[in-house]
Amino acid sequence: MVAKHFRCDLYFFADGCLLMEKGYLRKLSNPTLENPFFVQGLPGFGNVGRIACHLLIKFCDAKLFAELYSPSFPDYVSITSKGIAQLPRYEFYYAPMVKNNLVIMTGEIQPSFDDVVAHYEVCEEVLDFVEELGCHFIITMGGIPIGEENKTQVYIAATSPRLATEFMEKGAVIYSKGRIVGGTGLTLAMAKERKLDGVSLLGTTTGFKADREAGFLVFKFLMKALGKEIKEGLVENNAPEEE
Amino acid sequence: MVAKHFRCDLYFFADGCLLMEKGYLRKLSNPTLENPFFVQGLPGFGNVGRIACHLLIKFCDAKLFAELYSPSFPDYVSITSKGIAQLPRYEFYYAPMVKNNLVIMTGEIQPSFDDVVAHYEVCEEVLDFVEELGCHFIITMGGIPIGEENKTQVYIAATSPRLATEFMEKGAVIYSKGRIVGGTGLTLAMAKERKLDGVSLLGTTTGFKADREAGFLVFKFLMKALGKEIKEGLVENNAPEEE
Amino acid sequence: MVAKHFRCDLYFFADGCLLMEKGYLRKLSNPTLENPFFVQGLPGFGNVGRIACHLLIKFCDAKLFAELYSPSFPDYVSITSKGIAQLPRYEFYYAPMVKNNLVIMTGEIQPSFDDVVAHYEVCEEVLDFVEELGCHFIITMGGIPIGEENKTQVYIAATSPRLATEFMEKGAVIYSKGRIVGGTGLTLAMAKERKLDGVSLLGTTTGFKADREAGFLVFKFLMKALGKEIKEGLVENNAPEEE
Amino acid sequence: MVAKHFRCDLYFFADGCLLMEKGYLRKLSNPTLENPFFVQGLPGFGNVGRIACHLLIKFCDAKLFAELYSPSFPDYVSITSKGIAQLPRYEFYYAPMVKNNLVIMTGEIQPSFDDVVAHYEVCEEVLDFVEELGCHFIITMGGIPIGEENKTQVYIAATSPRLATEFMEKGAVIYSKGRIVGGTGLTLAMAKERKLDGVSLLGTTTGFKADREAGFLVFKFLMKALGKEIKEGLVENNAPEEE
Repeated sequence: MVAKHFRCDLYFFADGCLLMEKGYLRKLSNPTLENPFFVQGLPGFGNVGRIACHLLIKFCDAKLFAELYSPSFPDYVSITSKGIAQLPRYEFYYAPMVKNNLVIMTGEIQPSFDDVVAHYEVCEEVLDFVEELGCHFIITMGGIPIGEENKTQVYIAATSPRLATEFMEKGAVIYSKGRIVGGTGLTLAMAKERKLDGVSLLGTTTGFKADREAGFLVFKFLMKALGKEIKEGLVENNAPEEE
Repeated sequence: MVAKHFRCDLYFFADGCLLMEKGYLRKLSNPTLENPFFVQGLPGFGNVGRIACHLLIKFCDAKLFAELYSPSFPDYVSITSKGIAQLPRYEFYYAPMVKNNLVIMTGEIQPSFDDVVAHYEVCEEVLDFVEELGCHFIITMGGIPIGEENKTQVYIAATSPRLATEFMEKGAVIYSKGRIVGGTGLTLAMAKERKLDGVSLLGTTTGFKADREAGFLVFKFLMKALGKEIKEGLVENNAPEEE
Repeated sequence: MVAKHFRCDLYFFADGCLLMEKGYLRKLSNPTLENPFFVQGLPGFGNVGRIACHLLIKFCDAKLFAELYSPSFPDYVSITSKGIAQLPRYEFYYAPMVKNNLVIMTGEIQPSFDDVVAHYEVCEEVLDFVEELGCHFIITMGGIPIGEENKTQVYIAATSPRLATEFMEKGAVIYSKGRIVGGTGLTLAMAKERKLDGVSLLGTTTGFKADREAGFLVFKFLMKALGKEIKEGLVENNAPEEE
Repeated sequence: MVAKHFRCDLYFFADGCLLMEKGYLRKLSNPTLENPFFVQGLPGFGNVGRIACHLLIKFCDAKLFAELYSPSFPDYVSITSKGIAQLPRYEFYYAPMVKNNLVIMTGEIQPSFDDVVAHYEVCEEVLDFVEELGCHFIITMGGIPIGEENKTQVYIAATSPRLATEFMEKGAVIYSKGRIVGGTGLTLAMAKERKLDGVSLLGTTTGFKADREAGFLVFKFLMKALGKEIKEGLVENNAPEEE
């Protein structure tokens, strides 16, 4: 099944540069990936998803191959250490593995939480792109506010009862009657509407600041859940230093 | 009279799954309903409309047959008790009755009260669909803030003086010079613009929490107003347990 | 000069009812008006514009002939004294006079002050319609916050220095370096962009509540400014009772 | 390279006046400018960019030749000292120089900081227009909040490391790891996406009120950076009086 309708408006110039209308996707290279998994980690509660994603990118030595820009992203730009102005964007990395290739997406931003329609649109654009790449399994990672219970826990939400049970057996707790805010939840639920399989891995956090511990926990759970496919050819003890 | 312009954008995939652009409507089945009434109850003041609607669905043993999704709905997803991620949506149920078939709509959410245009659009989509189903009579149920007066009261607003009087004679008070916020009022007033008949049944409530008493009162009034058509074959004393 | 592009989306049903897409204009009758003036008064500071407009409608015994609906108007509906639900709308009245026919517009609402684009769009729709009716002179009435100075003053802004001077000579003070918020200012400035002539009559007000005095002052100034054209056949001492 | 897609919707009337749909650009004259630089200064922190821009316009005796209107600009109008209502707008000036012609843009407003998409759209419209005019070098000027460090400093962000270094050698400090809010940053970063060269000149300011000193500093740095091209035929000691 391939999406027949690709929403990004692309305006090509003579020399290949692009003009933004609604959002645009710039491919830096065209990696060939057979049947890849898609893994996403965006900023949010305790930055859990983003930290877990950075650990994964480092662990897999994943390569940047595409960028998604959107007029729904914040209206400020970041300056690099060398003084270069950068538009807000989502970055796509790939990591070819022996069994399961990975497409990994992260970013410094999400659309404003007030701009509900933008959230749906951007998730749609992400799913359009990763479906085009052949991804049929979607993993979103994020943080959820901690309650009274113990901190070191990963919760799971899924696109089917079978998957929820499968990941529960691997050690996650079903996030029963919970609510997932922003891209972490929307991408999963919209993937389900497209008949894709997927899960959200949710680390409990107080969320007051970047929660490296929760991020590492989610990353570790992802490693364990995906089993040897990810470990092959990679150093296990890659310490999480960035973020 | 049939609407000539249906606003939902539908994108079909090879295997029948849908891609959201502006909003989409997914039909789970195609019940044949002759000349049905449309009854709607959404969250709002004291959740009166939603509670009344749940009582009606239970009482009639109504069956889910369609779902409306919209990018204007909140950007979070709910997780079921089994761990499944669900996009926010309106649910349509049908209940075939001896005299008047019913189409019943409820949901856990409404568009944000700040997003005025979204409210109009979603009501339009609802009316497009129920007109397509052949509904010519629209009943919206909701709560209104209580004043000094006695609590146990149902107010009425209508699409014509004749209907307002008719329901007044059945025991409701005309909601003279009042104001109805959100979908409960808009659906009624937009139905009137389409030359449909309809009423709003409004239960007074303090609105601080889910008001089961007001919801039951509105439900009871609806039963009485529709007379024996609804009662046939149904247990009268179905106690309101859910919500 | 006639507008070549009419923005209202009109969807006609078999029996003549309309379906709202972006906004729609419903004509109740088609009065023939030669070279009419357009006068507008909307809610705002002290409701000065709206009060002045109501006095004018009463004074001229003007007749309702068209209504403008918009999904940018607030998402609540008002209930009439007879219990009928009404969508928010702008109302257009006409008053045939010996010299200058009038088209008068008022309403209970404006688009939300946060929704900037909606404000521009609705003013555009109003100007499209009144240009179509042949109006070449635009008068908007409103309130402006009072400073230290004396209260009983009408300020003027205009589409040309000639008009500003002309109305100054009639007793208004030029609203030099001022700022006019919402439809009262936008309609005037957008009329200027279309090469229409026009003025804003602005009554000073504290704006804390409906300011009948300021509204009457603006109405009186309008009468005086238009001179005998308006007075003909009308009772001068029509006391302002409503609002 | 010329943009193939021009977003401004232009509606022409018989006598040449324009009707706003999304935004429109009105040309007052068609100056011939070979290979001009584009310089922009909008309101923001301490109004640094706007003040610097006004100094530049005065210094170069630049002439107004185009105006950009947008429904995303604020929904109020300003009244001139002569009483004329003016829609919010960006103004484009040109200054023919011996070596580098200049196109200079300033305005009293920016889109609301909440309306993220509008910010992107308006910057896109500005770049479309200046590319059409043949500008390949973009200079945006603005203010940034001051930290602990000394006040009298100009920071630099650029579209390439080469340009950042070049301006650093002229005395600016690289705004490493900084963030630029609004049009000052977006225009630069979007110019980079179009393969245009450019820099942002950023004056430190407390930002509490219009900071003439910071504005003058940025202006002076621009003069120095552009070298003798600007100075030719112009009085050096043009004191900054306005704003």
